[in-house]
Amino acid sequence: MRDQISAAATEHFSRYGYEKTTVSDLAKSIGFSKAYIYKFFDSKQAIGEMICANCLREIESEVRAAVDEAERPPEKLRRMFKTIVEASLRLFSRDRKLYEIATSAATERWQATLDYEERIRRLLQDILQEGRQTGDFERKTPIDETAMAIYLVMRPYLNPLLLQHSFDYTDDAPAQLSSLVLRSLSP
Amino acid sequence: MRDQISAAATEHFSRYGYEKTTVSDLAKSIGFSKAYIYKFFDSKQAIGEMICANCLREIESEVRAAVDEAERPPEKLRRMFKTIVEASLRLFSRDRKLYEIATSAATERWQATLDYEERIRRLLQDILQEGRQTGDFERKTPIDETAMAIYLVMRPYLNPLLLQHSFDYTDDAPAQLSSLVLRSLSP
Repeated sequence: MRDQISAAATEHFSRYGYEKTTVSDLAKSIGFSKAYIYKFFDSKQAIGEMICANCLREIESEVRAAVDEAERPPEKLRRMFKTIVEASLRLFSRDRKLYEIATSAATERWQATLDYEERIRRLLQDILQEGRQTGDFERKTPIDETAMAIYLVMRPYLNPLLLQHSFDYTDDAPAQLSSLVLRSLSP
Repeated sequence: MRDQISAAATEHFSRYGYEKTTVSDLAKSIGFSKAYIYKFFDSKQAIGEMICANCLREIESEVRAAVDEAERPPEKLRRMFKTIVEASLRLFSRDRKLYEIATSAATERWQATLDYEERIRRLLQDILQEGRQTGDFERKTPIDETAMAIYLVMRPYLNPLLLQHSFDYTDDAPAQLSSLVLRSLSP
């Protein structure tokens, strides 16, 4: 039932926007009673969080698939950066209204976005770890420090609040920044 | 006279904000006639552009002074990054209302901000050039490419639209990112 409400809500929000829709509007439009919706979700934000979490999971799977396709850690890193930007932009352009949820999520620091950022950082650290083992990457710098700095380099392209001010750069930045990062990792 | 109007306008905007003030409000408040103001400035934006240009010049002088104090190119680069963040944040926190002008400028891509970005990129390129001559930095990568990539790394901390979403990172990011950039530059 949660899934059914969430699917209906996703469709509703993607048509009418998230900010201006109330739970009453939503209930009326998707044909459930407000009370019934509240049985599954505490608030509108709880519904938004679930939709947001689903979108972020989608981006993440796409990124993981792209990383897994690559053989060596340097290429994995390039793919990771490229795919994050592409997948985030697709979400932005395909569903301008759903993106509203993502910006609310990022502004208010919803748990779903914090978890996503954490998982992306961990994926990054795994690639770094692997590259240290294969000898592709240097081993002197503490790995946390390296992972954090690279995360900061990627942040303008994965955080929706920053991404919306970075459109002029999304074509070239992933390749240029990946190259810089890879130079910084050379043993 | 331009300077006198500009000084009075700066004070007025920093108290009442830029967006909501009209040239009539401004004229009344600073005791010049509207016609007189229009003799020197084509529009409110022209006044805003001048104030904005002054603020950016201030940041830039501070950055240049910090860079000049350092002896070697790697330290110059660290100082540049650190000072840009500090000076931009100071503008932000000291004059929340003047910052409004900076965000309008960045959103609408006023000439003053384009010129500023260009000068910052050139300063960066000068430091890189010097570091290549002293042997501190590698020489294989085309210098334009290196300069552009480093500029992209700094961008979230010098563009006010991005900076306002980066407060959580401004304490540590300059040092962490400078270290990453310097690793990428090692010969």
